[in-house]
Amino acid sequence: MIIARVVGTVVSSHKSPKIEGITLLLLEKIDPVTLKGKNDFVVSMDSVGAGVGEIVFYVSGSSARLTEVTNGKPTDSAVIAIIDSIEKDGNHTYQKN
Amino acid sequence: MIIARVVGTVVSSHKSPKIEGITLLLLEKIDPVTLKGKNDFVVSMDSVGAGVGEIVFYVSGSSARLTEVTNGKPTDSAVIAIIDSIEKDGNHTYQKN
Amino acid sequence: MIIARVVGTVVSSHKSPKIEGITLLLLEKIDPVTLKGKNDFVVSMDSVGAGVGEIVFYVSGSSARLTEVTNGKPTDSAVIAIIDSIEKDGNHTYQKN
Amino acid sequence: MIIARVVGTVVSSHKSPKIEGITLLLLEKIDPVTLKGKNDFVVSMDSVGAGVGEIVFYVSGSSARLTEVTNGKPTDSAVIAIIDSIEKDGNHTYQKN
Amino acid sequence: MIIARVVGTVVSSHKSPKIEGITLLLLEKIDPVTLKGKNDFVVSMDSVGAGVGEIVFYVSGSSARLTEVTNGKPTDSAVIAIIDSIEKDGNHTYQKN
Repeated sequence: MIIARVVGTVVSSHKSPKIEGITLLLLEKIDPVTLKGKNDFVVSMDSVGAGVGEIVFYVSGSSARLTEVTNGKPTDSAVIAIIDSIEKDGNHTYQKN
Repeated sequence: MIIARVVGTVVSSHKSPKIEGITLLLLEKIDPVTLKGKNDFVVSMDSVGAGVGEIVFYVSGSSARLTEVTNGKPTDSAVIAIIDSIEKDGNHTYQKN
Repeated sequence: MIIARVVGTVVSSHKSPKIEGITLLLLEKIDPVTLKGKNDFVVSMDSVGAGVGEIVFYVSGSSARLTEVTNGKPTDSAVIAIIDSIEKDGNHTYQKN
Repeated sequence: MIIARVVGTVVSSHKSPKIEGITLLLLEKIDPVTLKGKNDFVVSMDSVGAGVGEIVFYVSGSSARLTEVTNGKPTDSAVIAIIDSIEKDGNHTYQKN
Repeated sequence: MIIARVVGTVVSSHKSPKIEGITLLLLEKIDPVTLKGKNDFVVSMDSVGAGVGEIVFYVSGSSARLTEVTNGKPTDSAVIAIIDSIEKDGNHTYQKN
């Protein structure tokens, strides 16, 4: 799974009927140590109610279909966790306030 | 899913019989903030009637087979949405006119 | 799917018995606009009778197993189309002669 | 599979119910010859009791679901081995002490 | 499939029980024209008895599980062929002696 920040949303009125009603989040991958954005973006289906600004991780590939929200959907990316904290070499690089 | 612009089409008369009749779109990945092309291209099967110039997102991997058009086909990429708008940090970076 | 030129072949007499008799093509990815090679190569199983010099596209991942030739084989890449023409922004960047 | 060092952990209290109770390791990919970190990170589910500082390899994609810990879970990465030694061209580049 | 040279082995005594007894090869990807190593490594499960120094190709993703050795195993990479020769544009870039 890859760590990213929710930076926005994508809206589509003309799409596969299978993905109606699913929130499409715009994620920017971040460095998990500095938390800086990498200017590398992915559209991911929300399965946990993540909001803009939150740091999350998402799952890619066929496993993106294994959440309750995305089951059987044509998706290759799903947000499956909002991160509380990241610890590297004994130090917190991130703690949700 | 990855955001891209439909920039053209690919035609093949000699191909796997399973993909007969499917529109093969040439997509160029774009930066979702600046909307500039990345000079990185993929051939994707259309499932939503997308046309040249439109901004879309496509799904990769096994999930590309989960649209009504591509069901059971040998594909690793399918366009599943035409994008109306992209919002990043509270601002629209794209709005379809 | 990714656009590439067939640049050669790979021969192996000592391999998984499941892939006996399948033609192993050496592909070089190309820029679909300039048609220049990217010096990035992949070994792909032929399902359409493609020959050296032809421009093709190949499918990656589990879908590479969904051709008549590669069904059930341990493959992550299969050539599924010989390209006749590529059109970008209304102009042909490639037309097979 | 890719060789990495366990450099930390990720904690989430708000996540897909399917991944409750699974240890989420922060891995940094390393060069298997120099053992230096590549500043490239992935969140991986632990299936072998790996600890911070250990050198491991992880499996990606659908196979990440094929351990006893991750069976049926929405995961694209699982640590499946703690490495004892790496040998390249007849020399050990790594030996666990 | 990707062409690589077998450069060594990886040993683990503490691993997923499913992968007990399988040889873990350290592969370095090579340029198939110059045969030079790319300093890019992957751990791959051997299904053909490949030895250090040999040039092989490996399959990635779910298809890595489709050899007799790796069937049902948590693997994303399997060596499925020892290469005898590589031909590009009518010339051999490699011939096993």
